[in-house]
Amino acid sequence: MVKKEFFPGIKKIRFEGPKSKNPLAFKWYNPKEEVAGKSMREHLRFSIAYWHTMKGSGADPFGAPTWMRPWNKSNNPLRIAEDTMLAAFEFFTKLGVDYYCFHDRDICPEGETLIETNKRLDKIISLAKKLQKDTGVKLLWNTSNMFSNPRFAHGAATNPDAHVFAYAGAQVKKMLEAGLELGAENYVFWGGREGYETLLNTDMKRELDHLAMFLRMAVDYAREIKFKGQFLIEPKPKEPTKHQYDFDSATVISFLRKYGLEKYFKLNIEANHATLAGHTFEHDLAVASINGMLGSVDANRGDLLLGWDTDQFPSDIYQTTMAMYIILGQKGLGTGGLNFDAKLRRGSTDLEDLFIAHIGAMDAFALGLKIANELHKDKVLSDVIKNRYSSYDTGIGAKIEAGMVDLKDLEVFILKNGEPKQVSGKQEMLENIINQYLVG
Amino acid sequence: MVKKEFFPGIKKIRFEGPKSKNPLAFKWYNPKEEVAGKSMREHLRFSIAYWHTMKGSGADPFGAPTWMRPWNKSNNPLRIAEDTMLAAFEFFTKLGVDYYCFHDRDICPEGETLIETNKRLDKIISLAKKLQKDTGVKLLWNTSNMFSNPRFAHGAATNPDAHVFAYAGAQVKKMLEAGLELGAENYVFWGGREGYETLLNTDMKRELDHLAMFLRMAVDYAREIKFKGQFLIEPKPKEPTKHQYDFDSATVISFLRKYGLEKYFKLNIEANHATLAGHTFEHDLAVASINGMLGSVDANRGDLLLGWDTDQFPSDIYQTTMAMYIILGQKGLGTGGLNFDAKLRRGSTDLEDLFIAHIGAMDAFALGLKIANELHKDKVLSDVIKNRYSSYDTGIGAKIEAGMVDLKDLEVFILKNGEPKQVSGKQEMLENIINQYLVG
Amino acid sequence: MVKKEFFPGIKKIRFEGPKSKNPLAFKWYNPKEEVAGKSMREHLRFSIAYWHTMKGSGADPFGAPTWMRPWNKSNNPLRIAEDTMLAAFEFFTKLGVDYYCFHDRDICPEGETLIETNKRLDKIISLAKKLQKDTGVKLLWNTSNMFSNPRFAHGAATNPDAHVFAYAGAQVKKMLEAGLELGAENYVFWGGREGYETLLNTDMKRELDHLAMFLRMAVDYAREIKFKGQFLIEPKPKEPTKHQYDFDSATVISFLRKYGLEKYFKLNIEANHATLAGHTFEHDLAVASINGMLGSVDANRGDLLLGWDTDQFPSDIYQTTMAMYIILGQKGLGTGGLNFDAKLRRGSTDLEDLFIAHIGAMDAFALGLKIANELHKDKVLSDVIKNRYSSYDTGIGAKIEAGMVDLKDLEVFILKNGEPKQVSGKQEMLENIINQYLVG
Amino acid sequence: MVKKEFFPGIKKIRFEGPKSKNPLAFKWYNPKEEVAGKSMREHLRFSIAYWHTMKGSGADPFGAPTWMRPWNKSNNPLRIAEDTMLAAFEFFTKLGVDYYCFHDRDICPEGETLIETNKRLDKIISLAKKLQKDTGVKLLWNTSNMFSNPRFAHGAATNPDAHVFAYAGAQVKKMLEAGLELGAENYVFWGGREGYETLLNTDMKRELDHLAMFLRMAVDYAREIKFKGQFLIEPKPKEPTKHQYDFDSATVISFLRKYGLEKYFKLNIEANHATLAGHTFEHDLAVASINGMLGSVDANRGDLLLGWDTDQFPSDIYQTTMAMYIILGQKGLGTGGLNFDAKLRRGSTDLEDLFIAHIGAMDAFALGLKIANELHKDKVLSDVIKNRYSSYDTGIGAKIEAGMVDLKDLEVFILKNGEPKQVSGKQEMLENIINQYLVG
Repeated sequence: MVKKEFFPGIKKIRFEGPKSKNPLAFKWYNPKEEVAGKSMREHLRFSIAYWHTMKGSGADPFGAPTWMRPWNKSNNPLRIAEDTMLAAFEFFTKLGVDYYCFHDRDICPEGETLIETNKRLDKIISLAKKLQKDTGVKLLWNTSNMFSNPRFAHGAATNPDAHVFAYAGAQVKKMLEAGLELGAENYVFWGGREGYETLLNTDMKRELDHLAMFLRMAVDYAREIKFKGQFLIEPKPKEPTKHQYDFDSATVISFLRKYGLEKYFKLNIEANHATLAGHTFEHDLAVASINGMLGSVDANRGDLLLGWDTDQFPSDIYQTTMAMYIILGQKGLGTGGLNFDAKLRRGSTDLEDLFIAHIGAMDAFALGLKIANELHKDKVLSDVIKNRYSSYDTGIGAKIEAGMVDLKDLEVFILKNGEPKQVSGKQEMLENIINQYLVG
Repeated sequence: MVKKEFFPGIKKIRFEGPKSKNPLAFKWYNPKEEVAGKSMREHLRFSIAYWHTMKGSGADPFGAPTWMRPWNKSNNPLRIAEDTMLAAFEFFTKLGVDYYCFHDRDICPEGETLIETNKRLDKIISLAKKLQKDTGVKLLWNTSNMFSNPRFAHGAATNPDAHVFAYAGAQVKKMLEAGLELGAENYVFWGGREGYETLLNTDMKRELDHLAMFLRMAVDYAREIKFKGQFLIEPKPKEPTKHQYDFDSATVISFLRKYGLEKYFKLNIEANHATLAGHTFEHDLAVASINGMLGSVDANRGDLLLGWDTDQFPSDIYQTTMAMYIILGQKGLGTGGLNFDAKLRRGSTDLEDLFIAHIGAMDAFALGLKIANELHKDKVLSDVIKNRYSSYDTGIGAKIEAGMVDLKDLEVFILKNGEPKQVSGKQEMLENIINQYLVG
Repeated sequence: MVKKEFFPGIKKIRFEGPKSKNPLAFKWYNPKEEVAGKSMREHLRFSIAYWHTMKGSGADPFGAPTWMRPWNKSNNPLRIAEDTMLAAFEFFTKLGVDYYCFHDRDICPEGETLIETNKRLDKIISLAKKLQKDTGVKLLWNTSNMFSNPRFAHGAATNPDAHVFAYAGAQVKKMLEAGLELGAENYVFWGGREGYETLLNTDMKRELDHLAMFLRMAVDYAREIKFKGQFLIEPKPKEPTKHQYDFDSATVISFLRKYGLEKYFKLNIEANHATLAGHTFEHDLAVASINGMLGSVDANRGDLLLGWDTDQFPSDIYQTTMAMYIILGQKGLGTGGLNFDAKLRRGSTDLEDLFIAHIGAMDAFALGLKIANELHKDKVLSDVIKNRYSSYDTGIGAKIEAGMVDLKDLEVFILKNGEPKQVSGKQEMLENIINQYLVG
Repeated sequence: MVKKEFFPGIKKIRFEGPKSKNPLAFKWYNPKEEVAGKSMREHLRFSIAYWHTMKGSGADPFGAPTWMRPWNKSNNPLRIAEDTMLAAFEFFTKLGVDYYCFHDRDICPEGETLIETNKRLDKIISLAKKLQKDTGVKLLWNTSNMFSNPRFAHGAATNPDAHVFAYAGAQVKKMLEAGLELGAENYVFWGGREGYETLLNTDMKRELDHLAMFLRMAVDYAREIKFKGQFLIEPKPKEPTKHQYDFDSATVISFLRKYGLEKYFKLNIEANHATLAGHTFEHDLAVASINGMLGSVDANRGDLLLGWDTDQFPSDIYQTTMAMYIILGQKGLGTGGLNFDAKLRRGSTDLEDLFIAHIGAMDAFALGLKIANELHKDKVLSDVIKNRYSSYDTGIGAKIEAGMVDLKDLEVFILKNGEPKQVSGKQEMLENIINQYLVG
């Protein structure tokens, strides 16, 4: 079975440097190249998103699939599932990526009953385990798709029907077991239907209570089966639902704190989800990071002039630089990684486009890593920032930080010292310097 | 002094009913009319925003003032301040509104020094106190403007310079004292410059720590002077700064919880701020309400096709109905009210437009109140919602809510019970019914 | 065959008035009720969108279909096509709607070859013709789907490959013949793929030249076969493509003028497309109308906080009032109508929801018609506007309009007359009056 | 008088190359460096926007000015006007920019009457003329501010009051004379108030007729006085008004064609205005360019997450590259240039920030020019595009372009040739290559 080759014309992708004209070579990603004491590979922990890369078809809400992959040709859905897994590992290894991620329904279609579905899953998980062992590729995270099946039309854990809540619970139970079996380093919750279409028929408080209860059950079961992966929640403000409860980093953190769940979860920040919420990518990364909750990244790119999740491959060096700057700033993502939750444009119909797009994305982050490292090394921003806040290091500022003064003391200070001096924020100067590091 | 009349042609505004052609009469707002056991006046607790209504000039970023008010004609800024206060109370009483709100810099321009500024404030506060007593009009809330003066260009409590932090503290001290003196029922914080322009020069964590410290000092000082008003934070996502820390309800609640401040604050939700954050007005009201933190409302309207705070007078009955539905649902706003943080369009240059706009807004909320009350009385939505979640009232649902089941139990339940049944959310039906209540 | 009943529990929808609690009755739409000299039915010319109403499945980009219609159950695609047509006419007549609209691929799936496809079409067109005759229901417009099939991934008339252009031409030829056969009163072009994903690979000028050539061929062929229907272009700014050439009314009119096609086309304005372009619905209606090009309307509603085409059923009375105000202002839509290009929410899974949603939409436009008629009758807005521009009816204004003055004359006028007087725009007053007409 | 120095610490800005750490030096802009047969200086034709650079104060809608320039300190407004002009030319020459742009009200405040205003203007124009001669700096374009004065609250040429129309005409007459006197190479119209706030009080058709009449008068007067500058219209969709008639390139072109004015006008495209209209900068440049109407550029940058005109200095190399790619593609801007319609951030309060920001912007465009030239030279995109459309160069495609085929021919072609072949659009590959040119 493993003799099949799904990408016969394509060899292992090599680093050829910035001048290479070969679209199937890396220009900046050189896995073993050392940056700040670690290899690029260790820093970047790239991961492939099974749903887009292996299961994507080019379809969109206005159009049918534009490509048919060679692993998708059987009449037998289980054979397709196996072929897809084989193709996936061929892709991972040819591309040279160490991690992948999946939903339950990506790797295996549902059967008539939960029992049947889980049997199918067992078979395909066993194949994945073998392939992981053969190749060294690891599972960054897995998750359960609780949004595609019509049973989840009104939500999963937040469904008004407890029966659906139960179904979702059974699915997550199985996926936690799968994560354990495959050594997943994380487990992700993205609540695509955990939200509402209209407040006219919604009890928001009760739905949120249920969501918290659901997450707690997952935490408990993980502990019970000794699954050690990091739990992650992936914020998204809307789409498919009108409003999703996990709107953005701040909202998720608020929710977790309310229900006392904050120590069990970190966040999986997606660039395109941040921008749909009205934030820059780096904003939501920073919010997660300063709360000690930046766990992993869905590395893609949106189009700020389009109001939906375009899931484009990351290619903007400004963005990859800022992302890596924050990640380096917190000493890496721990068990997390950079997962390419990105899909080919509908018109990119060549099989090789799958490689080309990932290569570009990996190069963009490799570049971002190198530039961000230079910025850190040269203390370009950190010196400016340190100096800018230095009034809090001594005098009245230090007392403020120490909680040693009250409003009366502040009034006395002003009566004595009068107006503060004006200080420029030097934004334009810093933007100019960024361009020097980017292109220089 | 009190003999001056600033609106000589306008008499006390009366209720004339929906068929009236008099633009200077109420069509639906009938202050004494009883709705659900209380008068409209008690329900709605309307308030005038001093900054827009008394200080607005029709200016915008591309144009100079388009009107000159009769209370604004002296060469002496303190005389202007007094005349404005007199005109304000004439306006409040002619319109028949019980509350008003102000910033320190609305009622009195700054002097050369803080001492001078505070002396000026004392004088004008004393006038306000007298006028309150004379008329029975009360202060819904006051606040300090910590965004207009150039000293706050980089923030107030979140300024990188501790000297500015101190200045802001001194201002808030004075305004808490003013609130005490004038019997303010609330005190509001809107952090128009508490945010950042670029992450390149910003230490977000340190700024947020400072903001929390600042709020704590305010809480402590209020306790010290025995100011009993409710503290409120007003979320806004952006404008004037690129990103503001009090982005929306969820973000503010998250922040308050992080720093243990949640029991001292409620929220002042503004319609236009909610929509700038990507939410409906009712969404942000609902989020605040289910967290027990809906304290007051800035009643205006934005334009969803424009990306800035247009602060239009509320006139959309759908929105006022949903707002009043949520407010009735939590048994009113307590010490809060409906403050018209709204301004005339630049081209509405007649003095009477000021009355006409407020009349329309008050009518829109009176209508919203009446419709919302009918919806509550007839249990139009609550019956649908109660029934929709009834699976959690018994059986597996009740056990889920009680925390009595785990993922294994849920799996067992599904293995036994199979697929859930499909249930329609009936959104279109509910939308049709709303139209019947609105127009019917 | 015609004995099948697809909506067995539902009888012909009746008018029961605003107090009716029957979700399956009209509250305001009373077909024979006269408004301004014509029946509501004649004014409103409601039409059903075959693609959403008959072919919709509840699927969205993140989820599988949530309902299976009784006309969709055969294994034979042609049987499904026939059953769907039968069900459609049952729906039209039970609902009491006089028109419908379709794409070629809605009424009949493609065959292996164009010949086979067209044979299939002939069969189903013949059934439609019989049903039209039996019921009196007419075809408002038809069109060709040139966006779903993967061959159109890079456009139809604007495809870089002339072969695809030719395919599109063959499709349109067939649909013009179908329009002729079925007596279509209009023919619509919506260019869902006529645009670009990236300028990096696009020759915009050449694509637009091709589009113009394509439209000219359609005009010529219509003349040749004596098809008399009005040609309509439906603007949409984006989705599915990054940028669509028919961005909005102004853009389409510009394009038509450039290529000398303006006399052959009018516009089909969709509410949700207007708002995606950053305009209000009434703005794009008005732009089309003042250019004499408002031909028909796709009556739906978007969600201004969501960035995609939500295609909700119209229910906002403010919007339906303004739309009908503009339509009445130009004495109706001629051969056009109000086509409900709207779909049920994914969670509205009851078959009766299809009726309920259309009933609400028809009621919303019936109400809009009645209110708009009152506004016209009472000259509420027209008198204000007439008066506001009256300075152009005499004196310098009349000379300006007549082209009788130049800049020198204007300078002389100002030197003599000085500053203009300030005049209020009375926006808030007008908004208040609209509420009186809406609810009063 | 000319002995004053307003930027005493700053010397002429020099090119020091990409490694320079001097914030007051160019890193990429080397005026004499040759690119594609012309010097950078000749290509880029940089211009300073008098209103932002000289008159900007750091004020925003929520805050007072944050800086006081040394040329702004007199109590005499005319002395300020003179000092500002002197400072401006010192700035132009120290920065090394060849052009500037102004509004009438930037260079001189209005007097009590038009006569007085025009006298003031004459004096300051005469100073400008002398300084132009002394320095060689030229006037790229001038324009009239018809939006700030309250008389324009409801529009200038589109004002409902003919008196205001006349005032606007008198202003433009004077500015055309000023343009003639100063050798302006262009004259710009930006209609900041030419639009509407609400359709409830607006006769859109009549307003547009008036606007066309106004522009025609300007054209006629320019011919009469032999002013040879190119007329330009600057599109903007909104802000300050709800809707502006010159929404975007396509809308303006449509308007000009309708009124037969297209041969007298070109477009001045501003980056931030394009994005407010929902387009990329390059989109609106391309639309203007393929219609032969790209005349000049307002070179700035918006923030796509903010809904207002942020007018930031351009610094994104992706954008400057695409802009220069289009400009090189049409062989330059003719009499147009790159005008920095950009303002310092409110917090950039150092006088030197004015230099730093412009230096960064000039460097960003110099880089964009160099990269765009490489792309053209290597035919990176043009070869892809040429090949992509090559099916129109022969066979059926050539016949289509020649207008030699009709729909019947296309059907015959498809019946014979069947389905087209699938071709990838290679978007990701092209994006990867752009990164290589950018950073490589």
